[in-house]
Amino acid sequence: MDDPVLLTGASGRVGQAILGGNEDDYEWRLLDREPPADAADHEVVVADITDENAVRDAMDGVGAVIHLAGDPRPDAPWESVLQNNIDGTQTVYEAAVDAGVEKLAFASSNHAVGHYETDRKPDLYREGDDFRLDGTELPRPSNLYGVSKAAGEVLGRYYHDEHDLSVVCVRIGNLTKGHPPIDYERGQAMWLSYRDCAHLFERCLEADYDYEIVYGISDNDRKYYSIERAKEILGYEPQDNSAEHDA
Amino acid sequence: MDDPVLLTGASGRVGQAILGGNEDDYEWRLLDREPPADAADHEVVVADITDENAVRDAMDGVGAVIHLAGDPRPDAPWESVLQNNIDGTQTVYEAAVDAGVEKLAFASSNHAVGHYETDRKPDLYREGDDFRLDGTELPRPSNLYGVSKAAGEVLGRYYHDEHDLSVVCVRIGNLTKGHPPIDYERGQAMWLSYRDCAHLFERCLEADYDYEIVYGISDNDRKYYSIERAKEILGYEPQDNSAEHDA
Repeated sequence: MDDPVLLTGASGRVGQAILGGNEDDYEWRLLDREPPADAADHEVVVADITDENAVRDAMDGVGAVIHLAGDPRPDAPWESVLQNNIDGTQTVYEAAVDAGVEKLAFASSNHAVGHYETDRKPDLYREGDDFRLDGTELPRPSNLYGVSKAAGEVLGRYYHDEHDLSVVCVRIGNLTKGHPPIDYERGQAMWLSYRDCAHLFERCLEADYDYEIVYGISDNDRKYYSIERAKEILGYEPQDNSAEHDA
Repeated sequence: MDDPVLLTGASGRVGQAILGGNEDDYEWRLLDREPPADAADHEVVVADITDENAVRDAMDGVGAVIHLAGDPRPDAPWESVLQNNIDGTQTVYEAAVDAGVEKLAFASSNHAVGHYETDRKPDLYREGDDFRLDGTELPRPSNLYGVSKAAGEVLGRYYHDEHDLSVVCVRIGNLTKGHPPIDYERGQAMWLSYRDCAHLFERCLEADYDYEIVYGISDNDRKYYSIERAKEILGYEPQDNSAEHDA
């Protein structure tokens, strides 16, 4: 990807993990309501994701978009996820298509499928369990935030089918800098290290795909999300594992 | 269903088909922005589906909801489907749960999966073709209206999983009073007669289910939507077939 990459929600945790590992490899344009703490030499756009004109301006000349902006709270109220996550995401897709953007990676979430866990926990968090979600299943959101992420995935499907935009939706697990506590089984099963997060989104910028839904977790011993599709289509090669506590 | 049934969007085409076949069998409460042309002796609530207070008032004492209200235009602009179809539907689910409603049938649409046709037409409209959608597939909307219907399905999944509301999403085909023209192959394949529409929604009020996505079409010779799930779970027994032109 030689053209500039627009990173929305750049100041958030996922944005910082992505920048941390790919800082010097792309011409970044960082968009956020809050200016990033350390933007280095990158171009910064301070704007709300629901500000259509600002989003359209920010798309100028962009080759790919990583769209993270939105209300990240699992318990966010409907009014906020409707506006920031659903309407905001439609604004980003529409502007990307109009600007001739090639690829868009959308930050979806484990909360889009959280209710698959309801009848199966805690067994599915454990190594012996072979229950797997692989991205072909229908969403089962565990909260309205998860509903908004599932809606963003459907919007991506539409903008791919209708306008030929390459779209990958990454259902991000539990992104933390350090290993999750050994007794937090769910967190262990869906851990995504900062290093693997940066690498995964780098693959979203470099690989060729049509429309994909993949899971974003490290190569944990415990897991109930399949990472096979991310490996196969994106060339994802995770290096971390929540079971290796001294890694 | 002995308790009153709330029918939103009662003045529209689907509402009129449902009432036409079940007029005397339920205590109907009809909600629409426009008063129904012929409301007989039924209770009528003239309100917009986005009017939360009016929707909450209309839920009082209701046992089941058939939710049809929304912008029905396949080419409706995003702002309208966001407000009327997505936000309006969330209002209905939330109010239904708070009022202790037992069952909710949601009018989804063939447009939620319209892009499955893109690479396969016109073959999939023909009798020899065995391509079938059965409701387990991910949405592939053909327009933003279809996106809004897919979002309504996901909302239903959430309100079922989280609040135990029984929800059935009916992906309605091509509802017309008469048979579709013989040379309109797509319309033939997804025809839903008024009689079968009324019967299908009667089954949505009477059957027991958790969360379902079914297709709403008649028993057409041509079809690429499976009606097996509707038969099995709801007891749907369609009587019409678009191939029988003199039926």
